[in-house]
Amino acid sequence: MADYNKMALELHEKNQGKITVNSKVEVKTREDLSTAYTPGVAEPCRKIDANPDDVYKYTSKGNLVAVVSDGTAVLGLGNIGAKAAIPVMEGKCILFKEFADVDAFPICIDSQDDEEIIRTVKNIAPVFGGVNLEDIAAPRCFEIEKRLKAETDIPIFHDDQHGTAVCVLAAIINAAKVVKKNFADLTVVINGCGAAGSAIARIILAMGVKEMFLVDKNGILNTEVADTMLNTNHEELAAMTNHEKRVGGLAEAMVGADVFVGVSRPGLVSVDMVKTMAKDAIIFAMANPTPEIFPEEAKEGGAAVIGTGRSDYPNQINNVLVFPGLFKGALAVRASDINEEMKLAAAKALAAYIPDEELGVENIIPSALDKNVAAVVAAAVAEAAKESGVARI
Amino acid sequence: MADYNKMALELHEKNQGKITVNSKVEVKTREDLSTAYTPGVAEPCRKIDANPDDVYKYTSKGNLVAVVSDGTAVLGLGNIGAKAAIPVMEGKCILFKEFADVDAFPICIDSQDDEEIIRTVKNIAPVFGGVNLEDIAAPRCFEIEKRLKAETDIPIFHDDQHGTAVCVLAAIINAAKVVKKNFADLTVVINGCGAAGSAIARIILAMGVKEMFLVDKNGILNTEVADTMLNTNHEELAAMTNHEKRVGGLAEAMVGADVFVGVSRPGLVSVDMVKTMAKDAIIFAMANPTPEIFPEEAKEGGAAVIGTGRSDYPNQINNVLVFPGLFKGALAVRASDINEEMKLAAAKALAAYIPDEELGVENIIPSALDKNVAAVVAAAVAEAAKESGVARI
Repeated sequence: MADYNKMALELHEKNQGKITVNSKVEVKTREDLSTAYTPGVAEPCRKIDANPDDVYKYTSKGNLVAVVSDGTAVLGLGNIGAKAAIPVMEGKCILFKEFADVDAFPICIDSQDDEEIIRTVKNIAPVFGGVNLEDIAAPRCFEIEKRLKAETDIPIFHDDQHGTAVCVLAAIINAAKVVKKNFADLTVVINGCGAAGSAIARIILAMGVKEMFLVDKNGILNTEVADTMLNTNHEELAAMTNHEKRVGGLAEAMVGADVFVGVSRPGLVSVDMVKTMAKDAIIFAMANPTPEIFPEEAKEGGAAVIGTGRSDYPNQINNVLVFPGLFKGALAVRASDINEEMKLAAAKALAAYIPDEELGVENIIPSALDKNVAAVVAAAVAEAAKESGVARI
Repeated sequence: MADYNKMALELHEKNQGKITVNSKVEVKTREDLSTAYTPGVAEPCRKIDANPDDVYKYTSKGNLVAVVSDGTAVLGLGNIGAKAAIPVMEGKCILFKEFADVDAFPICIDSQDDEEIIRTVKNIAPVFGGVNLEDIAAPRCFEIEKRLKAETDIPIFHDDQHGTAVCVLAAIINAAKVVKKNFADLTVVINGCGAAGSAIARIILAMGVKEMFLVDKNGILNTEVADTMLNTNHEELAAMTNHEKRVGGLAEAMVGADVFVGVSRPGLVSVDMVKTMAKDAIIFAMANPTPEIFPEEAKEGGAAVIGTGRSDYPNQINNVLVFPGLFKGALAVRASDINEEMKLAAAKALAAYIPDEELGVENIIPSALDKNVAAVVAAAVAEAAKESGVARI
C-alpha cells in the first residue's frame, strides 16, 4: 500500500492547503472595477435590502455550503480541535467542488460549547446556502443539528450521520436484491451507536425494516436494561428496535441476522460470528482504515455480499457518493431543509444508479470516483424537495 | 457615464455572485482521494494537533483573509444588514485575489451586537490568517477592532479606517513634494470624524504634522467645547488637534490650511472656502460618488493638487492600492498584528512607488488598476513587521 501519510504531508505542504477562493468575474479595467465594485455594486445591495430573497440572485449564496466542525470527532483521531480539523474540512470542500461543482468553505469553530457553536453558525449563515456539519461528537451533534434546523432557514445536514446513512441504505437496497431477500424482512444488526450508527438505524427503519439490533460497548440496546441507555438518542432508538428484548453483546445480536453494519472498531467481528448469521448474509464493515472484519474472512464465514470503507476492496461505502449530489439538489431548488424524503430519494437514486442487470455481489454501489453520480442524486433530491414542500423555487 | 447600476445587476445575476471556491489539488484517482482526503489527510491533522503552528504549513490559513462585516455602514447606503452587504464583501474578496493573489472569503454577520460579533470572529478565526473588518459603523468599529486585536493572534485590520488612512497619507506625502512644502509643517483639515476621518487624522499626526482641525457636523473638534465630544475616540482626537482652540465650522477650519481631506458628504466645500486656504492648497475630496467639491471648482479656488475617490479624475484615492499588499506582506511573515509601523511602511512604499521625477499635480498616486503596487507594498510591510517584532517567520 502506498504511503499515504507521507504523500499527504507533501501534498498539503506543497500546495499550502487545498482550497483557494477565486473571482468569477474579471477585474482588469476601470469599468470592471466600477461594475464588480464601487459604485455599481451598490445596486445589488439596494435590491437585496429591498427584497432579501434577492440574495440568491446577486450573490454566491445559492451555491455555497459551509463545512462546519468543532474538531471533536475527526476521523479516527478523536477530539483534536478546530485547527487540526482543517485539513479534513478543506478536503470535504474540494470534494463538494470536484464532484458536484458546489462551492464549499471550511468553518472550524474554536469552541466546543453547543450554544456557542449554534450562535456562531447562525451569525455567519447569511452568505451560505447550506451547512454541512462534520466530525462533531455524538451525542452533541444531535442537539446542534436539531437546533440549527429549527433556527435557520437553510439546509443543515450532519454528514457523519446522514451521508453515511444514505449511502449504507443504498448499498443494502442493492445487496438485498442480489441475495433476493425482501428489504422489509431483513433483520439488521448495527454495531456502533454514535452519529453514524444512529442515523443508519433510523433511515433503515424508515424504509420499513421491522427488526434491528443496535449494539454498543454496553451490549444490545434494550429498553429493559437501564445501563444501555446513555442519552435521549439511545432511548429513542431502543424503543424502535430489539422487539424481542434480546440480551447480550455483538455475538448474540448477530445470530440469525441478515445484515451486519459496522461503524465501530477494527476486528470486532470473527469468522464464527458471521457463521451464526442467516444464509447469504450481507456485511458492511466500515471501521476505517481497518474494518470490523476483512472481506476474505467474512466470505469464509459464509457472507454473500461484503462492503467496507476501503477503496482497495469491492463495494466501497463512501459518503462522497451522497453529500455532493444531495446538497446540489437542495441548493438547486433553494430548499429550506434537507428532510427525510430528500434523504430517502438520494438513497434510492444512488441504488438505482446501477441497473438491476449489472448488480452483483461485487457491484452494489457505484465507484466513489464516478463523477456522474452527483447529478443523478441531485435530480432526485430536488424533486423530493419540491414534492415535500421545502423547495422555494 | 456608463450605467454602472444596470451593468452591476447584470454582472451579479449572470455569475450568481462573484466568488467561487476551488481546489488546489486534483481529485481524479483513488490515490488522489486517499492523499487529499482519507486516509492520508489524517497525517497533517496529527501534525497540527502535535504542533498548532503547523496549521500554517498544511492548510490554506497562511494566505486566507476573512472579510467581515455586520452591514451597518455599507458604502453610502447605511445600515443595510448582513445579506445586503454581501455584494460589497464579495467584491472586496475578489480585489484581494486579483491584486495580490490573497484568498479572501466574505463573513457577513447577522448581528449588530459588538460582543456577538467579537465572539463570532474569534470562533471562526482558526482557518484564517487575517481579518479585514469592513463597513462597520463608527464608533462601534473602534471597540470591535481593538478587542479583536487584543484577543486574537492574527492581524485584524479595519480597512475603512486604516486602508483609507494609508492611502491618503501616501497621497499627501507626494502632494507635499509637488508643492514643495515640508510635510510636518502642513496644517491639515479633515472633514468627517467617523472611521475614515479618525484614522486619517491619527496616521497624519503620527507622521509628524503639528496642527490639524477635525470637523464634523458639530463643528471643529475642540476640548473646550463639550458638545463636540461624542465618544472616547473624539475626546482622544480633540486632545491631539486644534491647539489654537479655533471655534467654528468647516469654513473657519479651512482658513489658512494647506490640506483639506474630505470623507464626508457631497458639495460641502465651496470655491470661496478654497480661496481662504494657504497658497498651493492640496484638496482630497473623497465623498463618493459626488465629492465635497469637484476638481474643476477646487482649481478655480486656487488649489494646486486635487484628488477624489473617482476613477474619472486624476489622483484617485482608492484603498485597493493598500489592503491587498498590506495583507500580503503581513501574511508572508505570519504577522500577529498589523501595527502602526506596518501601516506607515505601506504608505511610504505606496508614495515612493512613483519616482520623484514623475511626480506632478496630476500624478501623486498610482493608478488603482496597477497590479504591481501590491508586491511593493507587501515587501515594505513584511520588512516593517520583522523590524517591529510581530513577524513569526
